[in-house]
Amino acid sequence: IEAGRGDDLRDLVADFHETDLARLLEALPAPARPKLIELLGTDFDFTALTELDETVRVQILEELETETVVEGVRDLDSDDAVYILEDLDDADKQEILGHLPLTERAALQRSLDYPEESAGRRMQTEFIALPPFWTVGQTLDYIGETEGLPETFFEVFVVDPTYRLDGSVPLDRLLRTKRGLKLGDVVTPDRHVVQAVDDQEDVARVFERYNLISTPVVDGAGRLVGVLTVDDIVDVIQEEADEDVKALGGVAADEELSDSFWYIAKSRFSWLLLNLIAANLASFVISLFEDELQKLVALAVLMPIVASQGGNAATQTMTVAVRAIATRELRASNARRVIARELLVGLFNGVVFAVIMAAVVFARFEIADLGIIIALAMIINLVAAALGGILVPLALNRIGVDPAVSSGPFVTTITDVIGFFAFLGIAALWF
Amino acid sequence: IEAGRGDDLRDLVADFHETDLARLLEALPAPARPKLIELLGTDFDFTALTELDETVRVQILEELETETVVEGVRDLDSDDAVYILEDLDDADKQEILGHLPLTERAALQRSLDYPEESAGRRMQTEFIALPPFWTVGQTLDYIGETEGLPETFFEVFVVDPTYRLDGSVPLDRLLRTKRGLKLGDVVTPDRHVVQAVDDQEDVARVFERYNLISTPVVDGAGRLVGVLTVDDIVDVIQEEADEDVKALGGVAADEELSDSFWYIAKSRFSWLLLNLIAANLASFVISLFEDELQKLVALAVLMPIVASQGGNAATQTMTVAVRAIATRELRASNARRVIARELLVGLFNGVVFAVIMAAVVFARFEIADLGIIIALAMIINLVAAALGGILVPLALNRIGVDPAVSSGPFVTTITDVIGFFAFLGIAALWF
Repeated sequence: IEAGRGDDLRDLVADFHETDLARLLEALPAPARPKLIELLGTDFDFTALTELDETVRVQILEELETETVVEGVRDLDSDDAVYILEDLDDADKQEILGHLPLTERAALQRSLDYPEESAGRRMQTEFIALPPFWTVGQTLDYIGETEGLPETFFEVFVVDPTYRLDGSVPLDRLLRTKRGLKLGDVVTPDRHVVQAVDDQEDVARVFERYNLISTPVVDGAGRLVGVLTVDDIVDVIQEEADEDVKALGGVAADEELSDSFWYIAKSRFSWLLLNLIAANLASFVISLFEDELQKLVALAVLMPIVASQGGNAATQTMTVAVRAIATRELRASNARRVIARELLVGLFNGVVFAVIMAAVVFARFEIADLGIIIALAMIINLVAAALGGILVPLALNRIGVDPAVSSGPFVTTITDVIGFFAFLGIAALWF
Repeated sequence: IEAGRGDDLRDLVADFHETDLARLLEALPAPARPKLIELLGTDFDFTALTELDETVRVQILEELETETVVEGVRDLDSDDAVYILEDLDDADKQEILGHLPLTERAALQRSLDYPEESAGRRMQTEFIALPPFWTVGQTLDYIGETEGLPETFFEVFVVDPTYRLDGSVPLDRLLRTKRGLKLGDVVTPDRHVVQAVDDQEDVARVFERYNLISTPVVDGAGRLVGVLTVDDIVDVIQEEADEDVKALGGVAADEELSDSFWYIAKSRFSWLLLNLIAANLASFVISLFEDELQKLVALAVLMPIVASQGGNAATQTMTVAVRAIATRELRASNARRVIARELLVGLFNGVVFAVIMAAVVFARFEIADLGIIIALAMIINLVAAALGGILVPLALNRIGVDPAVSSGPFVTTITDVIGFFAFLGIAALWF
């Protein structure tokens, strides 16, 4: 099909939703992707590019003719256009912007000037803003008769002459209001106005917490500059959760399934190197007790159990803590209660597993002392695991470091070191 | 304030959003929560209960007077009412339903009859459905003049006399269409109609993929039974990501920050018990090589490094695989490519860390052979980690087990056992 039969292709993808088109692009070998788009010409919906992994999107955009990109971007809503342009390097970005008509260029440039991952980048700059002295009837007629309104909208915004936001009127309310009333009389102030410079994660929290469908975005002076709808926010929520999952698993937040071998090998390497240093630290702790290991080889056989049990208990606590910090459920006001509970859980499970392991060890080695030693070490390590699992993320968060990314190595090192040290240290004192 | 001064309370919370009211409830000691609600009486917005953790919600509902609950539930949208009722035990549920007027009871009962976590449970049963022969003008007048329409809506649905769905007309399109046209002429079929029995996670994927704001829900016969809006779906997406994070960290999906010590200790215990069994298996592998450990205690000092490095590399691969399976990015069509890439990453990092550790070990122990042994074991274990990390989740998913919940123990056991076995086994052959 890639041999130039554009018409057949056009027929094939005519009914495709943008997302399905994106799927098709991803399934194609890399060189065929820009070819497909050039062949489809104006029938290719650039919205599809917003549904691609960043790596694939940038690759395609770099290989497309500038003209094709310019034409494609012109057809997009401003938020989609910004989404596509923001990952390009500056030269490419300026070249494409340079080919756009002045007003469109200015609007996109303004959005691109907001910080990365801010509300300003995600917002749509097409919206309906009217003065408060218009009547409901006038508004309805205006909507009915005006060409070039935004493609979809859920409310009308009411602004003063300097574009300062008074509030909004949802379409369903507009329809159920008497035509003679003035917008100024029916408008309600938006309670969750977003600043254009706000971080998209904070904005996502607001949407989630107050079940919003869309919300106005204002600049520093309170002037309406755009509107954010929940479908853009859904992607933010998804991304953010994804980043937490990956960070906790020791994977870079931006790793994507379509990334190259080389990129992934490099990014995984740095995390594993950190872990290697931690493992060598634990190994150093073990080497302090070489004499005891020499005397009683059962210690070597058993010591990984204590360390591993501690590592897993700590991971449980850490997972809960990291996630609760991310969703703002864990706050200064309830931190003390959660810490106390984790400590109690660690102590309780420590005692239970201490009893189990003491019995197992006695059955296996028939040395009662060894059972007591592993029991004590187990309790110490599970309590340390609980404390480390909750205090490390809280401390990292306090000093402004993302706990999802950085907690893991600290917490594992703590439980490994304390696990080996407690078990071998008690054994050294005991025998 | 809890001493009965209802009026002051009413003034205080009058301006509260439901979510803030929920925050207030969670901050109060448990016995004060129902008291606050009884004091506020009809001024308490039951929507606030939907924003609470399940544990807290059920506790409050069980202590409230049945009458209060009945009154509160009557004021709610159907989806919120279902959300509140579904966690109660059957007797309580029936008692409350029994006090509701027949039509409301029937509607709620029907929603509750759909399976848990289905679209039918989350949908709103209030919507506007009109016949195709109505004109746009008639529709607009109807919306303007009719009392008792849903509180918010974004479209009108067009149905035939048996309520079979023709499609929908969004409000903004309705406003921009000539009044004389018939609904049947302007309706577009909804491309992403959801079945009431569909799982909410699948529905969330559809919303996300196609950037939907709302979508109709139909029963098995294609009759319109409700409408799902994206604000309900945002919670589902959030929950689902949360469950993945927790499952990978070895925490039960339903564990909440407000759960009791006892509940958490029990649920964490079962996971740790599984891990204990895995650790004992690894310990058994070590015990096979007691003679070697006796001869060369450096083996005991170094063996945790190999196992730990493997465990972490496997967790990286597993995290990516589990998340990609959950988001349907990893499919049969690209599994082969991803497996090959992970294998290559494992081999590459295995070789790099093999070289590093060989150098470290030689510097520490000045035994060249030991360096070669740990290098070989490191390569073997990182390749095993890569394979285990991707194949275990894929296999579990294939047999219908949630890979997020079950992959961890398998994968850790594999890397521990292979790590110890490779390192000690090669050492046994070598020396």
